[in-house]
Amino acid sequence: MTFRVGLLGHGTVGAAFHELLDERAPAIEAAVGQRPEVTGVLTRSRGDFDDIVARSDLVVELIGGVEPARDYILRAIEAGRHVVTANKAVLSQHGEEIYDAARRARVQLRFEAAVGGVVPVIRVIHETLAAAHVERVHGIVNGTTNFILSEMTRTGASYEDALAEAQALGYAEADPTEDVSGRDAAAKMAIIARLAFGAPIQLDDVPYEGIERLTSDDIAYAKELGLSLKLIGTAERLDGGISVRVYPAFLYGAHPLASVVGSFNAVTIESTAITEITLSGPGAGGPQTASAVLGDVISAMIPPPTLPAPAVSEPLATDVVSAFYLHLEVADRPGVLAQIAEILGLQEVSVKSVVQRGMGDDARLEMVLHPVLESRFKAAVDLIARLEFMRSEPRFVRVIEEIFEETP
Amino acid sequence: MTFRVGLLGHGTVGAAFHELLDERAPAIEAAVGQRPEVTGVLTRSRGDFDDIVARSDLVVELIGGVEPARDYILRAIEAGRHVVTANKAVLSQHGEEIYDAARRARVQLRFEAAVGGVVPVIRVIHETLAAAHVERVHGIVNGTTNFILSEMTRTGASYEDALAEAQALGYAEADPTEDVSGRDAAAKMAIIARLAFGAPIQLDDVPYEGIERLTSDDIAYAKELGLSLKLIGTAERLDGGISVRVYPAFLYGAHPLASVVGSFNAVTIESTAITEITLSGPGAGGPQTASAVLGDVISAMIPPPTLPAPAVSEPLATDVVSAFYLHLEVADRPGVLAQIAEILGLQEVSVKSVVQRGMGDDARLEMVLHPVLESRFKAAVDLIARLEFMRSEPRFVRVIEEIFEETP
Repeated sequence: MTFRVGLLGHGTVGAAFHELLDERAPAIEAAVGQRPEVTGVLTRSRGDFDDIVARSDLVVELIGGVEPARDYILRAIEAGRHVVTANKAVLSQHGEEIYDAARRARVQLRFEAAVGGVVPVIRVIHETLAAAHVERVHGIVNGTTNFILSEMTRTGASYEDALAEAQALGYAEADPTEDVSGRDAAAKMAIIARLAFGAPIQLDDVPYEGIERLTSDDIAYAKELGLSLKLIGTAERLDGGISVRVYPAFLYGAHPLASVVGSFNAVTIESTAITEITLSGPGAGGPQTASAVLGDVISAMIPPPTLPAPAVSEPLATDVVSAFYLHLEVADRPGVLAQIAEILGLQEVSVKSVVQRGMGDDARLEMVLHPVLESRFKAAVDLIARLEFMRSEPRFVRVIEEIFEETP
Repeated sequence: MTFRVGLLGHGTVGAAFHELLDERAPAIEAAVGQRPEVTGVLTRSRGDFDDIVARSDLVVELIGGVEPARDYILRAIEAGRHVVTANKAVLSQHGEEIYDAARRARVQLRFEAAVGGVVPVIRVIHETLAAAHVERVHGIVNGTTNFILSEMTRTGASYEDALAEAQALGYAEADPTEDVSGRDAAAKMAIIARLAFGAPIQLDDVPYEGIERLTSDDIAYAKELGLSLKLIGTAERLDGGISVRVYPAFLYGAHPLASVVGSFNAVTIESTAITEITLSGPGAGGPQTASAVLGDVISAMIPPPTLPAPAVSEPLATDVVSAFYLHLEVADRPGVLAQIAEILGLQEVSVKSVVQRGMGDDARLEMVLHPVLESRFKAAVDLIARLEFMRSEPRFVRVIEEIFEETP
């Protein structure tokens, strides 16, 4: 028996998927009882959408971008076809509309390839969800930025040089904005948070900071403290609601994400019942994405539908608690540290460690601060920035602590 | 609607499972449409097996050990009940009989909790399998031994002291043989290999070496080379068949398992299509195992059955290729290294690095050798051991290299 697959898009991923499906079809038939076959392909120059839908049981959307992908996905669903997509843009911006349509039409919608490269984040969150209450997901979900930060750490290269190297190796695009700004990671975290918490979170709800302004100096100082720098996406339940955000952060060495280097992706899922699970693997390339898409196709061949439940509105948190690394350049004279400490203390920011280094008439203070409401920390930094002995703008990076100590 | 769960065993894990199920029942009902409820409990002192089976849709077996667990599982299956078990002993020794029975009765059999603690190894291998050909699984699947080795590495403690500490902290049992001998890991690797390769591998097919004879000296020397020591289970396809084995090994720092410390478990699944996925999380404790069991129960509430396909016989490999760390204590005089090098060369063992350290009249050679057939390496070591200038038995540990370089 044939399971008919309509394929929208035939670029790098589409072609790799088509080839992989043909290669694995006999093994899949042996395992599942149906033989998947691509019965139609739509590209800019060939194929007719309605005709492809009519001759398929499932539609794979690999066009990318919002339109016409959104329109095609909705029309395929309304025609009663299962849909597999790798499209993070459309899901992070029009997810509710698409999930609702799939739920009404009782078709399957699967999107493992939209998030996390090879790492089966969506499956594991979906399956973990029913048995355990997910409290937090931390993710390195953009391979380009992780490669750049790894190179800056490893070689001491500047951001610009590491970016140029990533571009030369094909890890970064000619216009790297989507990746280095944190926007790509924000879209992925919106999809993850929607699934983990059931709240209708979209890309617009996710504040993001990128890696463009990080310097190799910051990395070098932090390395001495045993910290490593990553672009982290966080989705967590807080007392005040749900928070989803993307930001550069220093991780302590024992954090499971600290050792994830190069263009790898990784996600840590935390829950009281399971404590934590970490998943890691190479970020998306053509063959890896194709493999994730095929995995979704095979799952869709086996009923029943697994869909996100209808969304429940939950408030978004307006303030979150973070630990910080704070770097200040100040005139080297008595009383400076005392004034800074007083301002921090008034805002209830408590100091975990401080290193002072002389630089001629000036001095550099490198502080690690205990977790505090970000609004309070930023109020303190604003006050510190106005002190007359400051020699440059304060610089800060969030710090993520170990989930568990290495030993009890 | 109620989904009736019969519970066999009510020790630490059984009680934790019962409590977790009661707590999560409303959320599960909302997600799946049925409310799970424990409708009968069998312990040594209360409950009747036949009565419990009659009043359940699914039986959870948490008794452990081979009998009567095997008998209960088979009878529950024959009565048409789904079965969830955390029992690695029975699956690694009587797996085929149980899988066959479940396939014939068309019931679900799930056993995530038998392997890998919190880490969803079974699910991911099962789902990865259809889309990708699994070539190798490396696992740290015993938390006790990983804790002991981590402590020896971190503090320089002897094996005996680290074991005593693990016992004091509840990470090792009073009789630690099952864990430290590698037998527990071998049982888990047998289950993983059965699933990954479809071959009827059992515990008896898995050679295992433990950690009892490792010294903190070995660890210290290797640390200088950037290597870390783990008890590794390997299941892989080789040209000559399938090899499944458990052994202590040094890992290079960039290997994804190298950073797994403490009582954590982790598994790396390698495949051409997916390159690799690493999963890590805390090893099994009562609450974590209970959570894995509940996850299986929820999955079983949603048809269709997911079962290992019928086993296909494949040959077991008789010889495998490994890299080695070799430690020799010799008389410090001319010609010694040349004789050793000649023996290695005759067996086609090639040297990657060698460090010689003087110790009075004696010297210590620490060598890292390139991958070679183990039979050849052992032949060389047997010859070296007989050389008259040897001051002690040669010591060796396998070495696992990075899967990927940090940067291309």
